[in-house]
Amino acid sequence: MSFSQLGQSTIKFTTPPSVISYAAVVGKKEGEGPFGKNFDRIESDAYFGQKTWEAAESALFKETVTTALEKATLRTDEISFLASGDLLNQCTATGYAARGLAIPFLGLYGACSTMAESLFIASLLASNGSTAVAATSSHFCGSEKQFRFPLEYGSQRPPSSQWTVTGSGSVVLSGHGKGPYITHATVGKVIDAGVCDANNMGCAMAPAFCDTLARHLSATGSKPGDYDLILSGDLGHLGKKVASDLLKQEYHINIDSVYDDCGCMIFDSNKQDVHSGGSGCGCSASMLAGYILPEMQKLHLHRVLFIATGALMSPTLSLQGESIPSVAHAIEFNVQAQ
Amino acid sequence: MSFSQLGQSTIKFTTPPSVISYAAVVGKKEGEGPFGKNFDRIESDAYFGQKTWEAAESALFKETVTTALEKATLRTDEISFLASGDLLNQCTATGYAARGLAIPFLGLYGACSTMAESLFIASLLASNGSTAVAATSSHFCGSEKQFRFPLEYGSQRPPSSQWTVTGSGSVVLSGHGKGPYITHATVGKVIDAGVCDANNMGCAMAPAFCDTLARHLSATGSKPGDYDLILSGDLGHLGKKVASDLLKQEYHINIDSVYDDCGCMIFDSNKQDVHSGGSGCGCSASMLAGYILPEMQKLHLHRVLFIATGALMSPTLSLQGESIPSVAHAIEFNVQAQ
Repeated sequence: MSFSQLGQSTIKFTTPPSVISYAAVVGKKEGEGPFGKNFDRIESDAYFGQKTWEAAESALFKETVTTALEKATLRTDEISFLASGDLLNQCTATGYAARGLAIPFLGLYGACSTMAESLFIASLLASNGSTAVAATSSHFCGSEKQFRFPLEYGSQRPPSSQWTVTGSGSVVLSGHGKGPYITHATVGKVIDAGVCDANNMGCAMAPAFCDTLARHLSATGSKPGDYDLILSGDLGHLGKKVASDLLKQEYHINIDSVYDDCGCMIFDSNKQDVHSGGSGCGCSASMLAGYILPEMQKLHLHRVLFIATGALMSPTLSLQGESIPSVAHAIEFNVQAQ
Repeated sequence: MSFSQLGQSTIKFTTPPSVISYAAVVGKKEGEGPFGKNFDRIESDAYFGQKTWEAAESALFKETVTTALEKATLRTDEISFLASGDLLNQCTATGYAARGLAIPFLGLYGACSTMAESLFIASLLASNGSTAVAATSSHFCGSEKQFRFPLEYGSQRPPSSQWTVTGSGSVVLSGHGKGPYITHATVGKVIDAGVCDANNMGCAMAPAFCDTLARHLSATGSKPGDYDLILSGDLGHLGKKVASDLLKQEYHINIDSVYDDCGCMIFDSNKQDVHSGGSGCGCSASMLAGYILPEMQKLHLHRVLFIATGALMSPTLSLQGESIPSVAHAIEFNVQAQ
């Protein structure tokens, strides 16, 4: 057994997988934000040397994975599994990048929750002694084109909208190594609060975040104060407020003293025009790999609950009048393999 | 430890997960094929009581999962994980179905390889004692609309094209139970042979099938004759021939005496106008859950190597001139937990 089950979908790893390397690569706008100095590389060319937004994101993704491997002096043939996904249809950013990496590939789709999902799958493998990479990416231009309108249309974005991060984060997990470790995880249920506005993803995702958080705390017997940081993926400013309020009202849980959101952190909302904050798989992935994990390695953070949130929004189903279901998965990082 | 690693991405389960239930639901055309009597239900309404193809597939998927649970008298709250995916953008068939199932959800995208991927992930969980469902679906009308042309256009299909199966299969895995068991698995690499024709998926996928098969045989020390059946997902008639030839020429492996393909099996190519055979995640999933697993339970088949194959084809990237990368994952079923 590599884990014991604490709740319906909460697990405690018997041999917690170790984070042995990580890397984050982002675009120019993300590099100009408050965490610009934390990322491994900031690329000023939004095309990443390619001719299309899809190929650009694929290049970005591949660079992030290879950077994480280089930092750990690992070759691709020493990696057993790459668990990853992105927001593009058919997950092309990761699938096409995997073609050039020659690492056995598990493609995932969890919208912006994918970084937590990929960490969960990679943890299952690493807790058995395999070396596995969890990684995701997103690109503002490709996402806007696919989910809303091509940038050339010059569409107005409402205040509730979030800015899809151009960025990627990758984390290498191993069964053998020092901390930080992944000690627990909770897989989320698909929750639909009835939000139909594709420009208000934060509100659509907040209920999934609350459900997963409440189930994780209950199953592990933890309190919010036990964590140095509870981090949602990319609820943004509006969604973060909704999540905080909903937790108090419906679950009687107050996380405000330890709570932050990657979508609120990555851009400076006073100086950068991103409306309700950042979003996209690459948002939580690059913040995790660029800032959170290094802070844990320096022992500035000891126990972090990372809950990436995903809106399973489909432009096709939105046009059919459907609401936006969401999902959130929780990954608990500890500097000690407790 | 719940598994030991035999090769780069080949694993042997220490406590092999047990197949405790399965179900397959298909459309009218699939019901008229040679395996019509094997499926749990044949639905003559292509809309499955819904108003759109996307909602139809979601209803089909949900019915297959609930049928498998009913057959094992399991409630949804007794299931810890649903690992699943489909071909629709944002995997909406499964994501929207999961909304109504309240089972913690891991969304996957591996194109037509998804059934093997979902079995792999569910096996990792079940081998630790969890109860997990692996399931996928596909729908001819939704797939044609999304990947090629809406049916209303009346497009001609070339002889190399395959017919996306309207069908779904689900398999419930547990850490405790009788056989058949999943004893070994190999996760595939993304292989691109340079095929650019979106109407020739079989040829695009055959090299990925060969690579995964060769790596699985090598890592497990098995020969083709050790299996009662080696089953590819949906290479179709053309792809099956290419795979067989390629294995002989490049790998010096002859599997012809034990080899078949779900895409060749599901339709009667003499009577049903499907050109190169069936395809889609629902093809291998419904053949596995409708025919293969029941045959194993009756001990008519003892050891089966199921290799679902997926073309990670994107209409967007095809228009950009890109070729079609593919992936294939191998799942080894045994009636004994050897």
